[in-house]
Amino acid sequence: MTQEQTMAACAVNAWTTQIDRATKLFSGASDQQLLAEIAPGKNRLIYLFGHLLAVHDAMRPLLGIGPRRYEHLDAAFLTGADKAVADLPSTASLKEMWEEVHASLLAAFNAWSPADWVGKHTAVSDDDFAKNPLRNRLAVLLNRTGHLAYHLGQCVLAPKT
Amino acid sequence: MTQEQTMAACAVNAWTTQIDRATKLFSGASDQQLLAEIAPGKNRLIYLFGHLLAVHDAMRPLLGIGPRRYEHLDAAFLTGADKAVADLPSTASLKEMWEEVHASLLAAFNAWSPADWVGKHTAVSDDDFAKNPLRNRLAVLLNRTGHLAYHLGQCVLAPKT
Repeated sequence: MTQEQTMAACAVNAWTTQIDRATKLFSGASDQQLLAEIAPGKNRLIYLFGHLLAVHDAMRPLLGIGPRRYEHLDAAFLTGADKAVADLPSTASLKEMWEEVHASLLAAFNAWSPADWVGKHTAVSDDDFAKNPLRNRLAVLLNRTGHLAYHLGQCVLAPKT
Repeated sequence: MTQEQTMAACAVNAWTTQIDRATKLFSGASDQQLLAEIAPGKNRLIYLFGHLLAVHDAMRPLLGIGPRRYEHLDAAFLTGADKAVADLPSTASLKEMWEEVHASLLAAFNAWSPADWVGKHTAVSDDDFAKNPLRNRLAVLLNRTGHLAYHLGQCVLAPKT
């Protein structure tokens, strides 16, 4: 592997490690556990589940992989706060969407060359990218890996029963 | 910048972003706030502060930068759980050590070439590194950035007053 291939592989590895932890946590949680607040008066586990799902679905257009698949999640999990929307998707459907989104992201990640990784994401203009080449796909992946870890740290605080 | 320089810069950027958030959070917290639990029955903010400090200090030998500086923190913040040690360092001294550790890490990060980043860390043998070249310095940085984000997500839950 070249240096840049190794570096990209490390970043994908870091992402996959956190995704695997999250998948285990959410898929292993009962409906009752998902409805618990992570701490008194804070977000419910199900909100963070749907929030991460919506944010990761939005990585598809941001990284130029494809269109959003689950934009209907945004009102309940992204643009609104927890409990703003009463009627949530079933936990079974959330778990299914979770698998699909992450499979589609990982397939793209594994196919990209180093040039793809340091290429610009779709939310930055050519001019701005020329000024700051760090606004690339790899930076988006690292940012979203951090965002995921941040919320995972909160999820593990939720009551287990 | 070459592709591999850009990639390394993205990773350092992701680290620095999280460190800046943590610095703001801990340096802006009063002694009383630092003694609060992040949620009822969970770790206190001061424990996570010292924990991150000890883990980041240990990155120095792990990355071949230099020896530990603050190994005396480990009993209270790393090997033991919160409240196992009653006599903690002053918050002023923790804040000072925090600045020093991160300045020393960042100075090394900014001086490293891509070859340094994909070089092995000190806790892996030559044989094991030959089998898995992802056990490199960059992977350590990405792992610790995730660890930091994980605990930051918890720290923001602490009561503000």
